[in-house]
Amino acid sequence: MKIYKANILFTKEKNQFEVIENGYVAVEDGRVVRVGQSLAELNVGDAEVVDFGDSLLIPAMNDMHVHAPQYRNQGIAMDLELIPWLNNYTFPEEAKYCNEEYAERMYRRFVRDLWRFGTMRTVAFATIHEQGTRLLMNLFRQAGMGAFVGKVDMDRNCPDSLVQDVESAVRANEALIAEFNRPDDLVRPIITPRFIPSCTPQMLKACGELAKRYNLPVQSHLSENTGEIAWVRELEPQSKNYGDAYNRYGLFGQTPTIMAHCVWTDGEELELMKQNHVMVAHCPTSNLNLASGMAPVRRFLDEGMWVGLGSDISGGHDLSIFRMIVYAIQVSKMHYQKDRTKPFLTLPEAFWLATKSAGQFFGKVGSFEPGYEFDALVIDDSALNHDNYSLLHRLERFIYLGDDRHIVRRFCRGQEISEPEV
Amino acid sequence: MKIYKANILFTKEKNQFEVIENGYVAVEDGRVVRVGQSLAELNVGDAEVVDFGDSLLIPAMNDMHVHAPQYRNQGIAMDLELIPWLNNYTFPEEAKYCNEEYAERMYRRFVRDLWRFGTMRTVAFATIHEQGTRLLMNLFRQAGMGAFVGKVDMDRNCPDSLVQDVESAVRANEALIAEFNRPDDLVRPIITPRFIPSCTPQMLKACGELAKRYNLPVQSHLSENTGEIAWVRELEPQSKNYGDAYNRYGLFGQTPTIMAHCVWTDGEELELMKQNHVMVAHCPTSNLNLASGMAPVRRFLDEGMWVGLGSDISGGHDLSIFRMIVYAIQVSKMHYQKDRTKPFLTLPEAFWLATKSAGQFFGKVGSFEPGYEFDALVIDDSALNHDNYSLLHRLERFIYLGDDRHIVRRFCRGQEISEPEV
Repeated sequence: MKIYKANILFTKEKNQFEVIENGYVAVEDGRVVRVGQSLAELNVGDAEVVDFGDSLLIPAMNDMHVHAPQYRNQGIAMDLELIPWLNNYTFPEEAKYCNEEYAERMYRRFVRDLWRFGTMRTVAFATIHEQGTRLLMNLFRQAGMGAFVGKVDMDRNCPDSLVQDVESAVRANEALIAEFNRPDDLVRPIITPRFIPSCTPQMLKACGELAKRYNLPVQSHLSENTGEIAWVRELEPQSKNYGDAYNRYGLFGQTPTIMAHCVWTDGEELELMKQNHVMVAHCPTSNLNLASGMAPVRRFLDEGMWVGLGSDISGGHDLSIFRMIVYAIQVSKMHYQKDRTKPFLTLPEAFWLATKSAGQFFGKVGSFEPGYEFDALVIDDSALNHDNYSLLHRLERFIYLGDDRHIVRRFCRGQEISEPEV
Repeated sequence: MKIYKANILFTKEKNQFEVIENGYVAVEDGRVVRVGQSLAELNVGDAEVVDFGDSLLIPAMNDMHVHAPQYRNQGIAMDLELIPWLNNYTFPEEAKYCNEEYAERMYRRFVRDLWRFGTMRTVAFATIHEQGTRLLMNLFRQAGMGAFVGKVDMDRNCPDSLVQDVESAVRANEALIAEFNRPDDLVRPIITPRFIPSCTPQMLKACGELAKRYNLPVQSHLSENTGEIAWVRELEPQSKNYGDAYNRYGLFGQTPTIMAHCVWTDGEELELMKQNHVMVAHCPTSNLNLASGMAPVRRFLDEGMWVGLGSDISGGHDLSIFRMIVYAIQVSKMHYQKDRTKPFLTLPEAFWLATKSAGQFFGKVGSFEPGYEFDALVIDDSALNHDNYSLLHRLERFIYLGDDRHIVRRFCRGQEISEPEV
C-alpha cells in the first residue's frame, strides 16, 4: 500500500468537486482503498506516505476519440469540411502506415505526447494495417498506459490503398484479438468500422459479428456533418437514421459502444442511443475546425445520455483533454446564448465528463472513490499561483491556462508512468 | 544596419502569405530597409548578418484589447455573463489597484507574460488610478515594448471605490498626457471611457474633449452583450444606437478609435463605424467565455472595416494572440456553418488581422515591407517539426500547437527585447 498526500480534487457527482485540502489517498493493487482528510480518517495501518506538498492531485484524463495515424497532420489542413478533408489529407496520410518504420516513428511520438498532456486512457483509431495496429498497442503496453485500439475496417469510398476485403479484415482483427483480448489488460482491441460511408453492408455485418463473438466494444463516427448524414441516407435507405444503420448490424450498444461527434443527433437516433446506452465522444475542437457544428451536450446530459470528451486529432488540433474541457464549456455557452432556458456546462460538469463519465468505459476509472483504479496527475501550478487563489480557482486556472509543464507526475492503475521513449 | 537571415513569413496582402525560404531582412533605425531572397537582392552594402538558421521569422503580435488589472482573474470566474461578471469579479479586483505595491506586483507579471507570448504592441485598459496607470506605462517603457495605455474613466453604475468625479478624472488624464504624450514614444496614452453604462454624459463629454484637445486615440467597448445593449438604449435614449452614443461625444473615430467586441454591430452602427474608420477589436475567447455571441468578422471584412484581435483578459482566458488567430477562424466557421455563401476566415486572413491590420494603429507595424518598424519573433519550431512540413504548414502548426517555448527571440522597433523582470 502507498499513501499520497496532496490537495485532492475530483468529481464524484456530476456538478460538484470534492475538495480535500492537504488530504490523503491510500492506494493498493492499483486501486484507491480510501481517501480522506487525515491519516486517522484513512485508518489503513502503516504505509509509506508520499507527500506532494502544495500540489494538486486530480484524476488523469481520458481521450475517448482520437486517430493515432493522423498525428502528423495535427494543426494543419484546416481549410476543408469533413468529406473533402478525408480525401485530401487524411486518407493519403493513413495509407503511409503500411510502412512499419514510419508507423513506429509517428506512433512513438503520439504516445509520448498523450503522456505529456496527462491522458492515461485512450480510445484510438489506428489504420487498416494489422502490423501497424499491433505496433501501437505494444507501445501503449510498454508505456503502461491504458487504451482501446481499433484496427480500422473500411472497404469503399476511399483510395484503393485503404480498401481491404472483408475476409482479410476479419483475419487481421482475429489475429489482434487472439493476442490482446485479455479482460484485465490495460491495452485491448475495439471493433472499428470507420463510418457508414467507408463500409459495405458486408463489412458492417462482419464487424457486428466480431463484436458479438468476442464480446468486444465498438467505436465509430455518427452524425458529424450534414453532408455526411445526407450521404448515409442515400447509402442506407432502409435505415431509419444514421444510428439505426449501425444498430442493424449490431454495432450500436449491443456491446459497449462509443460514437464520436453526434453533432446532429436528435429524435429517434437520440432515443436509440439512450436506450442502447451508447456513449457520445464529444469533440468540440474538431467540430469547430471542420465547421461541422456544435453538439448539444447540455441536452445530452438532460436526457441522461453517456458522454465523454475526445481530442479527435487531426480534425481537432489539440491533444490536451484539459483544453477539451474548456472548449466543451465554450460550445455549450453558444447554445445557451441562443436558448437561455438551458444552462451552459459548469466546470465540474465538464471535468466529470473527462474523468468519471468517460472513465466508466474502462471499468472503475476517473474518480478517487474507493475501488477506483488510481489514474492520477500531480499538478504543480506554482507558476500560475501568483496570488491567493482557492483550490478550486487554482484548478480552474490550470485547466484554462496550464499545460504539460505543470503536470509533474502521472499514474495509471496505481503505477507511476515515466516518459515513453520516442 | 543589421541583416537577419531566416525563413521569413508575413502577410503583405490580406489573404496570402509572403514566404521567403532562407531569406534576408535588412533593418536600420528600427525599420525594415529591404527584404529578399539573397544578399545580392537586398543590395544594402556591408552589414552584420545574424543567422537564425532554420527558424521562422514572423511579425510580432499586437493585442488590441486587454485589461491589465484583470490579470489576476485570468482563467477563473467563467460562470457569469457580462454585467454580473463585472460586478462580482472585475470591479472588486480593479478597486485593489489603488494599492501601488499590489499594482506593481501584478503589472510586472502581466508585461512579462505579454513578452512570453510574443505580443510586442498592446492597447490596454488600466484602472481609474493615475499612479497605477503611470506604473504600467513605465513598465512597458522599461521593457521596450509598445503600448497605448488608458487610465479608465467611469463615474456611475459601479462600486463607490471606482467612481471618480469628472474633474479628478480630467486632471489625472492631463498629468499622464503631459508625461507620456510624445509622438514617437513607444508608450502613449489613450482616452478610455470604460463603456456607456459606466460613464455619465458629463464624463463622456470630458473624454471627447480630451481626445480632441490632445489629439489622442480612444478605446472603449461596443455592442458586446444583448443585455448590455438594451441597458445602453435606456441610458442613452437620444442616441440612434450604441455606437452613436459614443459618436455624439466625439469618441467614435474623430481620433483613431478602437471598439472592443462589436458582436451585435449591424445596420446604422456598422455604417457609422465604416464611415468613421473605427477599428473593431475582435475578442473571440472573451465572447465565448462570457456567452456574448460570435462577432461576424467575415462580414466586417467584406464591408471593408478595420479589424484587429484582442485577448481581452480576463473575459478572455488566453494571453496568446496566436490562440486568438485560431479562435477567430473557429468562430468564423460557426458563422459559415449557418451561411455557406460567406467563406470562413483563412489562416493568412486571421494572421493579417493580428499583424498588419492591427499594427496600423501603431503606425507602420505588422509587416516586413520596407519602411515598417521591425517588430518580429523568431520561432524555433524544431520540436513540432517531426516530419517534412512546408514552411506554411510549419507556421500553421506553430500557431495551432505551439506556445511560448517556441518563441526564442523577440524584437520591437528593431530592438531585441529581453525578458522583463517580475
